Amino acid sequence: MNRYAKDFPILGQQVNGNPLVYLDSSATSQKPFQVIEAVETYYKQYNSNVHRGVHTLGSRATDAYEGAREKVRRLINAESTQEIVYTRGTTTALNIVASSYACPRLGEGDEILISPSEHHSNLIPWQQVAKKTGAALKYFTLEPDGTLDLEKAKQAINERTRLVAIAQVSNVLGTIFPVKELAKAVHDRGGVIVVDGAQSVPHMKVDVRELDCDFLAFSGHKMAGPTGIGVLYGKKELLEAMEPVEFGGEMIDHVDLYESTWKELPWKFEGGTPLIAGAVGLGAAVDYLEQVGMDTVAEHDRKLAAYAVKRMEEVEGLNIYGPREDRMGIVTFNIEGVHPHDVATVLDAEGIAVRAGHHCCQPLMRWMEVAATARASFYLYNDEADIDRLVQGLQKTKEYFGNVLR
Amino acid sequence: MNRYAKDFPILGQQVNGNPLVYLDSSATSQKPFQVIEAVETYYKQYNSNVHRGVHTLGSRATDAYEGAREKVRRLINAESTQEIVYTRGTTTALNIVASSYACPRLGEGDEILISPSEHHSNLIPWQQVAKKTGAALKYFTLEPDGTLDLEKAKQAINERTRLVAIAQVSNVLGTIFPVKELAKAVHDRGGVIVVDGAQSVPHMKVDVRELDCDFLAFSGHKMAGPTGIGVLYGKKELLEAMEPVEFGGEMIDHVDLYESTWKELPWKFEGGTPLIAGAVGLGAAVDYLEQVGMDTVAEHDRKLAAYAVKRMEEVEGLNIYGPREDRMGIVTFNIEGVHPHDVATVLDAEGIAVRAGHHCCQPLMRWMEVAATARASFYLYNDEADIDRLVQGLQKTKEYFGNVLR
Repeated sequence: MNRYAKDFPILGQQVNGNPLVYLDSSATSQKPFQVIEAVETYYKQYNSNVHRGVHTLGSRATDAYEGAREKVRRLINAESTQEIVYTRGTTTALNIVASSYACPRLGEGDEILISPSEHHSNLIPWQQVAKKTGAALKYFTLEPDGTLDLEKAKQAINERTRLVAIAQVSNVLGTIFPVKELAKAVHDRGGVIVVDGAQSVPHMKVDVRELDCDFLAFSGHKMAGPTGIGVLYGKKELLEAMEPVEFGGEMIDHVDLYESTWKELPWKFEGGTPLIAGAVGLGAAVDYLEQVGMDTVAEHDRKLAAYAVKRMEEVEGLNIYGPREDRMGIVTFNIEGVHPHDVATVLDAEGIAVRAGHHCCQPLMRWMEVAATARASFYLYNDEADIDRLVQGLQKTKEYFGNVLR
Repeated sequence: MNRYAKDFPILGQQVNGNPLVYLDSSATSQKPFQVIEAVETYYKQYNSNVHRGVHTLGSRATDAYEGAREKVRRLINAESTQEIVYTRGTTTALNIVASSYACPRLGEGDEILISPSEHHSNLIPWQQVAKKTGAALKYFTLEPDGTLDLEKAKQAINERTRLVAIAQVSNVLGTIFPVKELAKAVHDRGGVIVVDGAQSVPHMKVDVRELDCDFLAFSGHKMAGPTGIGVLYGKKELLEAMEPVEFGGEMIDHVDLYESTWKELPWKFEGGTPLIAGAVGLGAAVDYLEQVGMDTVAEHDRKLAAYAVKRMEEVEGLNIYGPREDRMGIVTFNIEGVHPHDVATVLDAEGIAVRAGHHCCQPLMRWMEVAATARASFYLYNDEADIDRLVQGLQKTKEYFGNVLR
């Protein structure tokens, strides 16, 4: 086990008689005991509803809930906590931008530009905006290795492009997309950029002011935090001009029988009892990642990815998708003649957890001309020994299916 | 401490030098160790994303996530788990009904009928539907004691009434509204009823088939479960006819570049990585409440409410709002000449947690002709000794402000 793995209690177990090797962190990351304990302590010591409580528990809960927001602000270098909206996750965050920012502002003649590699959560909301507003949904063209040619991409952005939506890191290809350059290009044309940070914020330093992105969405559960909490970052002037999406308690200023007014940012987007334990846990996760250092996390990720690509290329008949270099810790692959679900099943028998399927990227699968793939994804608790176990398991898979098929 | 209080670790603490008396369960309930441990065990032993994982952890997580749905179905006696949609909480659930059921179906000439006692979460969404569709928002007339006269209420329901939305238990008055009778009345006119169960499902046996309600919304965190998880129950034929509200992973069947189709119920309403730990914790909460017995919980609640009303009426200058009899464990009050925030502050110094404010019911506060109130609310872990402590604290509050004012 590497030095971080010891912080993650789940990793110490046996699965199917073998020590667990967890290679599915792009789906959800594991949680260090610091995060698990923060949630437990919240429930055991100061669970209370927030903001309106005059009592001691209420104040403690409010401080922790809002304190976590400041940690998130610092992590992504937002100007203000007013720009940090807690959501249920990346999907909710992107849907808020689609329904509250894009729908009232786009119309016929406008274009939305996304990549065919987008996760369904950053694709279907834009299909819906196009349907509802009459705007046209357009796609960047991917290079054969799953990257964007920046010059071609810039040319695709024109004066009709009102909105570019793109993942900073592809959850299938591991590609790092040039968000900063795309942001400049779309700003020059008067549009905005929406960044899906689900696979980047957990794995590298993301600075919203350096990127100059207009919106950034990410999830707590992929960055060592609890399930059910995520973040929508938005530039203050954009969020301020947007209408709330959900209406209820905690997001209002004045409520009359027939008219209501909203609280200021960020609370106008946080109707109802918020995700209090989730925010507390997310704050603990940010503390944990910052203690490790986001640059250390990113470096570890890139090294493991490079090692994995090198080792996995040694397996005959194994195809890796996406760029060979400059990629994050996601390696999507297939073994000739073996269905990816079978790959994952044999690996599971060895205690190795990988994912198989379309990874919420059906259009990308068609672009790759496959129905499905297997995917191994890494985080700070993985090390080269895990990759070695994976490669051993893949050799075994090949032998097993080789024998079956012979 | 009563026999249930020992299950709730938070209750064993001192607040401001006094043993904590937690009387704010209508805002959020405390959690038994069974729930806290279920969440902890999830993170320590089988945290994984659900549905698409071929690996062992993924199967365990999926079983727990879907297993909790069956527990919820059983609790409210729904016909099928397809009728149980996990949401972020009551607010999200009600907003889904407003935007996905009501908005596309209502128009000018239609009426929405709600009570002036509704929580903002069951009021503002209907204001918004009225604004967007041209339907008229109408209000029942409350009797002076905060109840509905059933005959008058039935008369208010007419052939234009397409939707009645009402809380089964008022979060301010403790009133139990006649949901079953209202459901029949609105069905006779061809409309539907939406029930806010936030204050009822945690405290009494709620049977959706007996009530014949069309939709029921409630929150996990008010029923001994985690924050950030709630439920929308809807009759299958209604949910089936509704469009999803959030678009992304896990809710799709087929995704093309420009068109997508949705999964079957309930998943079409659950886009994105779901609230996995929340669902697991909610399942544990349902187990806990069912072990106690919902009838026992309700009986305990009513007894405490009756005792509280009796004892608090002994305090001179204290006004209790809502019905004197047949009410659940919520007692909202004011002390003449003392601001409710000051009441809550003095009580907090004694270790007693009550809430002060408008309780997300500004229109009801105006109907009650007050700016704010204090509110004590009970759950199974409270007992008569807690009420006695409250009454002592209230006497102290009166003395303190009596001396200050003299």
